[in-house]
Amino acid sequence: MAVVLGPNRYGKAETRVVRVTRDGDVHRIKDCNVSVALSGDMTEAHISGSNAAVLPTDTQKNTVFAYAKKYGISQIEEFARLLARHFTRSQPAVHRARVAIEEYSWERIPKGPSWSFARAGGEIRTCAVHYDRNGTETVVSGLKDLVVLNTTGSEFHGFARDEYTTLEPATDRVLATEVTATWRYVPPVADYGESYEEVRRCLLEAFARTHSLSLQQTLYAMGSRVLADRPEVCEVRLTLPNRHHFLVDLTPFGLDNDNEVYFAADRPYGLIEGHVLRDDAPAATFAWE
Amino acid sequence: MAVVLGPNRYGKAETRVVRVTRDGDVHRIKDCNVSVALSGDMTEAHISGSNAAVLPTDTQKNTVFAYAKKYGISQIEEFARLLARHFTRSQPAVHRARVAIEEYSWERIPKGPSWSFARAGGEIRTCAVHYDRNGTETVVSGLKDLVVLNTTGSEFHGFARDEYTTLEPATDRVLATEVTATWRYVPPVADYGESYEEVRRCLLEAFARTHSLSLQQTLYAMGSRVLADRPEVCEVRLTLPNRHHFLVDLTPFGLDNDNEVYFAADRPYGLIEGHVLRDDAPAATFAWE
Amino acid sequence: MAVVLGPNRYGKAETRVVRVTRDGDVHRIKDCNVSVALSGDMTEAHISGSNAAVLPTDTQKNTVFAYAKKYGISQIEEFARLLARHFTRSQPAVHRARVAIEEYSWERIPKGPSWSFARAGGEIRTCAVHYDRNGTETVVSGLKDLVVLNTTGSEFHGFARDEYTTLEPATDRVLATEVTATWRYVPPVADYGESYEEVRRCLLEAFARTHSLSLQQTLYAMGSRVLADRPEVCEVRLTLPNRHHFLVDLTPFGLDNDNEVYFAADRPYGLIEGHVLRDDAPAATFAWE
Amino acid sequence: MAVVLGPNRYGKAETRVVRVTRDGDVHRIKDCNVSVALSGDMTEAHISGSNAAVLPTDTQKNTVFAYAKKYGISQIEEFARLLARHFTRSQPAVHRARVAIEEYSWERIPKGPSWSFARAGGEIRTCAVHYDRNGTETVVSGLKDLVVLNTTGSEFHGFARDEYTTLEPATDRVLATEVTATWRYVPPVADYGESYEEVRRCLLEAFARTHSLSLQQTLYAMGSRVLADRPEVCEVRLTLPNRHHFLVDLTPFGLDNDNEVYFAADRPYGLIEGHVLRDDAPAATFAWE
Repeated sequence: MAVVLGPNRYGKAETRVVRVTRDGDVHRIKDCNVSVALSGDMTEAHISGSNAAVLPTDTQKNTVFAYAKKYGISQIEEFARLLARHFTRSQPAVHRARVAIEEYSWERIPKGPSWSFARAGGEIRTCAVHYDRNGTETVVSGLKDLVVLNTTGSEFHGFARDEYTTLEPATDRVLATEVTATWRYVPPVADYGESYEEVRRCLLEAFARTHSLSLQQTLYAMGSRVLADRPEVCEVRLTLPNRHHFLVDLTPFGLDNDNEVYFAADRPYGLIEGHVLRDDAPAATFAWE
Repeated sequence: MAVVLGPNRYGKAETRVVRVTRDGDVHRIKDCNVSVALSGDMTEAHISGSNAAVLPTDTQKNTVFAYAKKYGISQIEEFARLLARHFTRSQPAVHRARVAIEEYSWERIPKGPSWSFARAGGEIRTCAVHYDRNGTETVVSGLKDLVVLNTTGSEFHGFARDEYTTLEPATDRVLATEVTATWRYVPPVADYGESYEEVRRCLLEAFARTHSLSLQQTLYAMGSRVLADRPEVCEVRLTLPNRHHFLVDLTPFGLDNDNEVYFAADRPYGLIEGHVLRDDAPAATFAWE
Repeated sequence: MAVVLGPNRYGKAETRVVRVTRDGDVHRIKDCNVSVALSGDMTEAHISGSNAAVLPTDTQKNTVFAYAKKYGISQIEEFARLLARHFTRSQPAVHRARVAIEEYSWERIPKGPSWSFARAGGEIRTCAVHYDRNGTETVVSGLKDLVVLNTTGSEFHGFARDEYTTLEPATDRVLATEVTATWRYVPPVADYGESYEEVRRCLLEAFARTHSLSLQQTLYAMGSRVLADRPEVCEVRLTLPNRHHFLVDLTPFGLDNDNEVYFAADRPYGLIEGHVLRDDAPAATFAWE
Repeated sequence: MAVVLGPNRYGKAETRVVRVTRDGDVHRIKDCNVSVALSGDMTEAHISGSNAAVLPTDTQKNTVFAYAKKYGISQIEEFARLLARHFTRSQPAVHRARVAIEEYSWERIPKGPSWSFARAGGEIRTCAVHYDRNGTETVVSGLKDLVVLNTTGSEFHGFARDEYTTLEPATDRVLATEVTATWRYVPPVADYGESYEEVRRCLLEAFARTHSLSLQQTLYAMGSRVLADRPEVCEVRLTLPNRHHFLVDLTPFGLDNDNEVYFAADRPYGLIEGHVLRDDAPAATFAWE
């Protein structure tokens, strides 16, 4: 028996860069959290401690800042592509680079000057780009922390039962979830920003308009709606925690509860995960690694 | 020497209640986190363990749900007032009740049915109401998690210096903070909802429009703007962490940085706290306890 | 009506300093999070934006690091005292300084060299020291995140009831809480480190050995035990969330549950707060501000 | 083009179960967070909304509680194995079950009765067990939140450089990380509890005793030490964030800093990930899914 090094990668995680651009008095900001991970011929660093192949993570951080200056940050996917290419092409030991970015959105303050912003809440936009030394590139876009709720239009019944089943069938329940979605493309993509807005719209509309017999059905409706509307997308992956809203039993107090008062529970929670894809989607390779 | 019991209170914290109301197909939701704290003649519970004066915290939770059914939740301040009165008036041992509520806001999903919602991000609305057995009531409203940023219009110089001072004066810096604000009223208040929206607007506009020589100056401008515009408010308390955005030194890479690339730091951070009030404001008594 | 500035303070929060000392090959570390808040004659900074009285929070951070070098960090209370005196005595505009410190504890790794450490879990040690320009000093020590649980020896019955009460009396329940405690002293204190260890021991033993009829009774037992054992302490303040462990109803599955299987709930939770003090304790003044 | 459902699973996440066992007055507790995920023939639930194959997540929660009663919780791996087998064997539509458990450890309170406990800090023990309908079982054990630090014995130099490199080589630095480790076995495993303690000891000792030229080298030393000492383990996966401790420049204050005063930074941070395995380890199949 011998011990061997398996897959590995390293990099600088969570470089918080804010890029300001000015067009006269009109300012714009991009607020990002950039994580770089490099992999390749790093065996010596692990075995002997030789760092000859190791570009410091500090350098990676510097590069993020320098690239933000030199190229600006238009769409996070484009910025990630630039960085991933740079690391793979400039470092012989790097066989593949992964650059993941979270973007926090800001809105102008109403009636404020054009340099004043308030952080918009709601979802965080994400991406993860891989670029390897063969020139293979994968781009995954996404969002997280998008919390949605339907006060009606959701049922859950006809389920399998065993000796541990006590759940009553529901014909009208609250359905709430916190959407984490990622999707990949059939390149080329004309405009990642437009694509993001449209995918987000598809996810919201499919959640809102699906009469749901299960959260699984809603998940599939959300994914397939994106694929139906957006030809540049070939696969959607969704993680949907079921944020249970339990109807409170008010009968001890002489009150009925006609779907009016709910307890929003923390734990435990249902967790539904699924991929929805075109049947002709190419292999995902390392897109989600 | 004898040991004595000093101030004390107890209650059920963080009851997560969601109240749905329906007007035909048009649904509305109020999503709240309610915390009750009761104080009064509770010495025996502490000394002898007699619970004769102790209304269980479980009962307090039940009451929150039952009241949500019976009275609905219009404005959180009004709901808190109802609950605080109930506990103080119905329990002889309770000399004062405090009811604090956080409200999470939701928006309709565009093009969705009238029962579909997405959680709005941004700030959380808060209140804390006290009611004592003499009928004295205090209402404090507030908000938290409101993150704002100006990309220009902020300076910091002319400060005190000592042997540990290395900071360079700044004539054009990014100013960012996460606003926690609370305010109290000169009753009566016609409409807590309108008041909230207007105070929020005042805080945002004052932040945006103040050319800032220090975060302290911005704090005072925010508070005094509320007092100038809203006669029903007599005191504002603000907590403003200075979310430092440090200009990155790009000169090692042959690049200038004309206020374009910033590092958003986590810790440490400046923390500015202050009260702004009318000179004729009555005493706050226990409003902020 | 005129608008006035009320109480205010400012400072650098959460400077994360790690101080290493070496005695030959034997290393020691102190891992602290230091927050400074200064108050005094700061009106101009708020009104006109003049910063002549404002020692930058950046300077405060530098001072924390420089003092860690010059004086080391023995007990956090002593380090906080040094810093609070420095700011008040060296800055004419500062009328009072507050220095609060959290300390994270580390243990040596068994069989490791004397410079290898693992972070100890459990509670965090805290202190908050005030020093004003009249030379008045207050020292509050504390701990937080100390989670304790008794599997028996706890009851809750004989409580007040109203129309919203459904809770069944309990004669044998799990009692669990997460202790936040702070205490102040009758100076002088010979050794803050010893005092901390002894107060911690008193809190734990009183929790463990009290047959509890309510969490209030346990709170009082914990506080009075400290006062009985430690003459240097004159007041203890405790915050005890009731971390409910609900007995699971297993009867639908043909199983009894003789206090064996519990669901550990997150929210809502009971919250018990109380002060326990000597009847001859001097006024707390600004100790807990 | 047609839309198809790809990999999917669902289940109840984070059921917080506390199991008490009593041997006379001597009580023991196991405090666990159990997450179940089932996969199999769930297409109809997604496409048509038929739930005939869907065992409710509520039932899964009930099962966790009932099994805790019936079988107790000895080692979390054994409890997860029981549950995974149950779901796969009893539900025809379930082709594979994954049961993941976190365990929080408790210690007896010194001098307390045998039913009094304090939550031990430090690391959390974890496991993830898969069982599929062919009888293939994988068991992965692990730990997380184990924070370790060496005040010396760490260097970093001889690294690759490019035009964005400004880092100075270090010959004596603080090395700190928060260990997340998972490992799989060559079955059978005699005693998961003993194995856990020994793997934990190996990880700590290897961290402590490795003179480190890079965190990669330390990672490999930790993994290979486990494999060398524990024949039942065939692969270790490690995630090691580099918790940077930056030496503070005190020269502006006329002070040197001989590796005594550090700033513990939050973000960004280096992140080192790697697998270490035996060259004859069987394929991992779905062990880490």
